[in-house]
Amino acid sequence: MTVNVLFAAKDEAWEKYSQHLPEALKEVGIDAKVSPSFPPEEVDYIVYAPNSSVQDFTPYTRLKAVLNLWAGVEDVVGNQTLKVPLARMVDHGLTRGMIEWVTGHVLRHHLGMDLHIHGQDGKWRAYVPPLAEERPVTILGMGELGTACAQTLAGLGFPVTGWSRSPKQAEGITCLSGPLGLKEALSKAQILVLLLPATAATENTLNEETLAQLPKGAVVLNPGRGALIDDKAMLRALESGQISHATLDAFRNEPLPVTHPYWAHSKVTVTPHIASATRPRTAARSVAENIRRREAGEPMLNLVDRALGY
Amino acid sequence: MTVNVLFAAKDEAWEKYSQHLPEALKEVGIDAKVSPSFPPEEVDYIVYAPNSSVQDFTPYTRLKAVLNLWAGVEDVVGNQTLKVPLARMVDHGLTRGMIEWVTGHVLRHHLGMDLHIHGQDGKWRAYVPPLAEERPVTILGMGELGTACAQTLAGLGFPVTGWSRSPKQAEGITCLSGPLGLKEALSKAQILVLLLPATAATENTLNEETLAQLPKGAVVLNPGRGALIDDKAMLRALESGQISHATLDAFRNEPLPVTHPYWAHSKVTVTPHIASATRPRTAARSVAENIRRREAGEPMLNLVDRALGY
Repeated sequence: MTVNVLFAAKDEAWEKYSQHLPEALKEVGIDAKVSPSFPPEEVDYIVYAPNSSVQDFTPYTRLKAVLNLWAGVEDVVGNQTLKVPLARMVDHGLTRGMIEWVTGHVLRHHLGMDLHIHGQDGKWRAYVPPLAEERPVTILGMGELGTACAQTLAGLGFPVTGWSRSPKQAEGITCLSGPLGLKEALSKAQILVLLLPATAATENTLNEETLAQLPKGAVVLNPGRGALIDDKAMLRALESGQISHATLDAFRNEPLPVTHPYWAHSKVTVTPHIASATRPRTAARSVAENIRRREAGEPMLNLVDRALGY
Repeated sequence: MTVNVLFAAKDEAWEKYSQHLPEALKEVGIDAKVSPSFPPEEVDYIVYAPNSSVQDFTPYTRLKAVLNLWAGVEDVVGNQTLKVPLARMVDHGLTRGMIEWVTGHVLRHHLGMDLHIHGQDGKWRAYVPPLAEERPVTILGMGELGTACAQTLAGLGFPVTGWSRSPKQAEGITCLSGPLGLKEALSKAQILVLLLPATAATENTLNEETLAQLPKGAVVLNPGRGALIDDKAMLRALESGQISHATLDAFRNEPLPVTHPYWAHSKVTVTPHIASATRPRTAARSVAENIRRREAGEPMLNLVDRALGY
């Protein structure tokens, strides 16, 4: 029997997925029709971007599951009309892309690259950076992405501390948890990476108090979620020199408004939400595998715990 | 018996090593006197920087070995007055530092970071870079450093080709050799890393002909030796767009003269010979271990083949 897969996302996304998604479903042996429009009562699965026009799931009476196209679920998890399982996007491509962004920007700040990229002025600045083994990095958030980034950085020699709400273990990583653990994790971080989910509990994780717990001159990377940072507190910490640089990929409003002070700030680098971009080719495979599992009666992967919010 | 170790290098280097070197020798159980001056006939070992004032080794009549402080030996290997074994510097810190520089700059170009570092102008450039697995990197030179860098990049997902004069093997790397292998290695390189030693045979490895064998728009990284590149051919290739960017850490004359066209070139990043900087703490351990081996009658490590020149 053919399963009907509604692709509920912006038109740009459909352009990227219209080929990859049917291909990936065919590869796993699912006879599916994928389309951006169906009569609601005929839809079996929704491949979903939270910014799509579908906000009321009530008419989708035979819906089996919603497969989020994004890693972040904060804009759908609270939707009371959604009664079926919701799967986060865990995309091989997204994980690799996040590792590349985080590793690249950690090395950029570690090596002091900006000095050379900006300073092509004939001045030979023979400053030898310390080795990675002398540069402690802390990652807040030890989910799928945080753990993968932590282990890659540890492999390059960085001493890595990973903090999470509940206790975790990861080989080669100093794992801390809870409020006291957070203070200790921050106190060591020459480079801090934010990879927490956006929930009510994580909003403004980086605020005036926690920014002050970092070593003076720390660098902050935020490839996670905009709401993790109290932006006003961050701007004050940049002014005072408490934070020497912030490289930010996620913002409360995106695209970041042209008038936002982050844009013009010499100690801020804005990247346009590319760290956690899903790649259609690999993401389509992830969606197809989950539909195959549901059809075969196997447990689906990466289901969201709606109570926890991630 | 106390061994006398002459430290023959610039005064700045002595400042860095005067503490680490005696400590490292003591750690391996060698009773040594380390000093920047001795009567030549009392010297057992010379810890040597090729730019030191010692250029005639004839008066050092009881010399057992010369321990180069630099990875590069091209400025000492041809010295006819040197009759004892010469060891290259293979420093854990140097290898780590090289891996960090190469990985950092490969990721910088792969991610298109400069666009964001330079372009803080309020324009949201939502360009998602390809994944590392779609970005072929070629390394010329598969010695200690080239192999280490190749394996780190392969670990991040880059398809890595390594080329060397004579055939080599390295896990996870496509290894090529010889003139035909060079052509093939160049033809695939979206990012090319030069890590060949400076010898008569490698001078101008990157010249008009070989630059043209790269894919249009390739990026060149040179953390190796300045003489590997024909600078005029490189400047022409940058003008024509054949090479989109060159990040160079080694030059024929260092410091790179302020009038050199590389400095002002928007497609060139100059870094001040930091990729292969030895770190005194780790380098001192490497020197001490080799002196311990010679004193114990064990084979020394990293001896230079004077005929090959490296």
